[in-house]
Amino acid sequence: MRSLRSLFPRTRVVDAHCDIPCGVYDPEQARIEAESCLRIIEKHDASDDKHFRARCIHVKEERAELVKHHLDVLWHDYFKPEHLERYPDLHETFWKASKQASKVKQSVDAGAARELLTMIDTIDEMWKATGGLEKTRVNGRPS
Amino acid sequence: MRSLRSLFPRTRVVDAHCDIPCGVYDPEQARIEAESCLRIIEKHDASDDKHFRARCIHVKEERAELVKHHLDVLWHDYFKPEHLERYPDLHETFWKASKQASKVKQSVDAGAARELLTMIDTIDEMWKATGGLEKTRVNGRPS
Amino acid sequence: MRSLRSLFPRTRVVDAHCDIPCGVYDPEQARIEAESCLRIIEKHDASDDKHFRARCIHVKEERAELVKHHLDVLWHDYFKPEHLERYPDLHETFWKASKQASKVKQSVDAGAARELLTMIDTIDEMWKATGGLEKTRVNGRPS
Amino acid sequence: MRSLRSLFPRTRVVDAHCDIPCGVYDPEQARIEAESCLRIIEKHDASDDKHFRARCIHVKEERAELVKHHLDVLWHDYFKPEHLERYPDLHETFWKASKQASKVKQSVDAGAARELLTMIDTIDEMWKATGGLEKTRVNGRPS
Amino acid sequence: MRSLRSLFPRTRVVDAHCDIPCGVYDPEQARIEAESCLRIIEKHDASDDKHFRARCIHVKEERAELVKHHLDVLWHDYFKPEHLERYPDLHETFWKASKQASKVKQSVDAGAARELLTMIDTIDEMWKATGGLEKTRVNGRPS
Amino acid sequence: MRSLRSLFPRTRVVDAHCDIPCGVYDPEQARIEAESCLRIIEKHDASDDKHFRARCIHVKEERAELVKHHLDVLWHDYFKPEHLERYPDLHETFWKASKQASKVKQSVDAGAARELLTMIDTIDEMWKATGGLEKTRVNGRPS
Repeated sequence: MRSLRSLFPRTRVVDAHCDIPCGVYDPEQARIEAESCLRIIEKHDASDDKHFRARCIHVKEERAELVKHHLDVLWHDYFKPEHLERYPDLHETFWKASKQASKVKQSVDAGAARELLTMIDTIDEMWKATGGLEKTRVNGRPS
Repeated sequence: MRSLRSLFPRTRVVDAHCDIPCGVYDPEQARIEAESCLRIIEKHDASDDKHFRARCIHVKEERAELVKHHLDVLWHDYFKPEHLERYPDLHETFWKASKQASKVKQSVDAGAARELLTMIDTIDEMWKATGGLEKTRVNGRPS
Repeated sequence: MRSLRSLFPRTRVVDAHCDIPCGVYDPEQARIEAESCLRIIEKHDASDDKHFRARCIHVKEERAELVKHHLDVLWHDYFKPEHLERYPDLHETFWKASKQASKVKQSVDAGAARELLTMIDTIDEMWKATGGLEKTRVNGRPS
Repeated sequence: MRSLRSLFPRTRVVDAHCDIPCGVYDPEQARIEAESCLRIIEKHDASDDKHFRARCIHVKEERAELVKHHLDVLWHDYFKPEHLERYPDLHETFWKASKQASKVKQSVDAGAARELLTMIDTIDEMWKATGGLEKTRVNGRPS
Repeated sequence: MRSLRSLFPRTRVVDAHCDIPCGVYDPEQARIEAESCLRIIEKHDASDDKHFRARCIHVKEERAELVKHHLDVLWHDYFKPEHLERYPDLHETFWKASKQASKVKQSVDAGAARELLTMIDTIDEMWKATGGLEKTRVNGRPS
Repeated sequence: MRSLRSLFPRTRVVDAHCDIPCGVYDPEQARIEAESCLRIIEKHDASDDKHFRARCIHVKEERAELVKHHLDVLWHDYFKPEHLERYPDLHETFWKASKQASKVKQSVDAGAARELLTMIDTIDEMWKATGGLEKTRVNGRPS
């Protein structure tokens, strides 16, 4: 079930520990909340029920806030100066993704939510390219 | 990068929406927090610094609480009566996983944290076998 | 004022301590939040004020979430394997109560909130029958 | 099981609603958290386990904070100017109880926690004497 | 840039430490949240967008709750019995300010929010007159 | 008492509103929490009481987390592309301040907390130079 287990043995993971207690980061957390935002917007748009739509706005507010939080953590805790050398647009990427998450909070625009997911994909690429998958997850991502 | 995208086209995902706004569930959220617990325990055990060890206990407390929360959400929100028919031990599995998360909270036992990760793997299997991957994630899990 | 004090002397309470720090559980916490949900729904229904109704939906969302949280804590922290032997439907009872709390979250249906209160009464009975009152409260419940 | 139900019929409760959505208050919430503080202190004192004692301090901090929160809500939301006429020492009583909760937070003094419980009993008396039991609870307190 | 720095040298601040860890209090925290409430109400009133107005109600609810929290902390943590002698209406002032914050929560009345700001100004005066500025801030307030 | 009131009349403030509900930002929120961190570290270092020191670590953890949160909000919500043109090192400044806040979380180093306060002063300068004081506060900062 966990085919990545053999590729990234335990000892390598231990080496990957940073100076922060947790040491486990994954853009997946931001993505799951952003997917929630997209689904909520789609369901909001498909409904005529005022009560339901009010609930959607409420829940989306919280989910988009969680996206911002998870992005912030990746930006200032996972990424290090050496990553910035490789990705000079690191800051700009996160800044725009955060502002996009604000847009998702402020609107019921499914396109904005999809754009946010694309931005998180870009961050996910950076995370993987800098060894995030091997270094921070215990057994790699499940498939 | 997203090979599952073609297998589960967008329209099927829309059908999968349940009566709850969010509709996105993934045991990955519980697993990431449980991995944090394991890493914190390992770092705690490897350190002699009193201040650092006190911080580990503090942070582990919060992470293990998040594991319990994410498990609770899966149990009472994602799983439905028809899943219970297929998995008669569904309740027992979650109950034991929650109690195991308590154990991880209460101890600095890396073995207990590993056992918790195995239990989350079992829940992940149930989630996948009941269509969780296709129905709740937007584009499937990233690899 | 506290007539139960003499019935459940202090020493018995100390014995009742479990391996978790707190050791104090009472379905009353879930019930108070569920009563809030009922009251909010009644006031929502009796009002024509849009702003007030929007606030009701917001506050009910939080209160129903607290019901679920308090039920979760009772289920995985207070109840032990020996209780399950006595109440084989323990898991089912909690599962249905959690799903009922979701219903209260999703609707403005006073009947659903009353049904939830009845389910909490059932849990309260289990809690009392398993010695919850004597074992977890310091001086018993006040009248 | 609910003998108070007949004494305080539903219609009276509806009348008791104030202009705040929830309208349900009970010093029991503060008391349950204060009982937790007492139990945690007792278990802390009875243990030699450093890890366990660190957890006790962590959890007590949160529980005592919840006591303060629940007292604050009673003070500024439940109690009204007419109650102040009847209880001119209302403010002083709450102020001292809040400062006592701080003391419970700051120390591992079981006597301080017991004193806090006594102060909450006094507030409970005021709540009952001003009709809190009939007006804010749906069916009265369970026994 | 920090002209107050020379007026309140570091050593005096250290003396001002109370028995609570933090020891830093400033009505500015309550004021900033109360200003948010006012701005949100103004923007709510100026908009015809249902979605935006729903968000305003949601966010205002949280901000007004923060005002109440910050006022509570000042009241029971910063102010001491000796301050009560100087300001016999201390309790009444805070009680009314808390009830005013409730009013801001319950309404979309800009006048109510402005009145709340005036009440916080009064509390700010008391805080300054009792040495709050010198004793609790590190370098005094920035201009 | 509020001498800035006449300099920044109400109408200008209204113009300053952005598309986000709140629209009120002030680095003072981050600074107050950072001052708390400094004070807690000083008191931690001056104490021999194990219980008190454990509480300090707990409370500092939360306060430093709040610093990071308030900095994040300023970075992605207050600052706009036009500010970045004026301050090309905007991102770097915030990134380093966030990493410094992590350092304050991880250590009991008063020097690290003072360095963090200096960094917040720099951000405060940027906020003022971009009109933050006039545009986001209702009546300017109190003295």
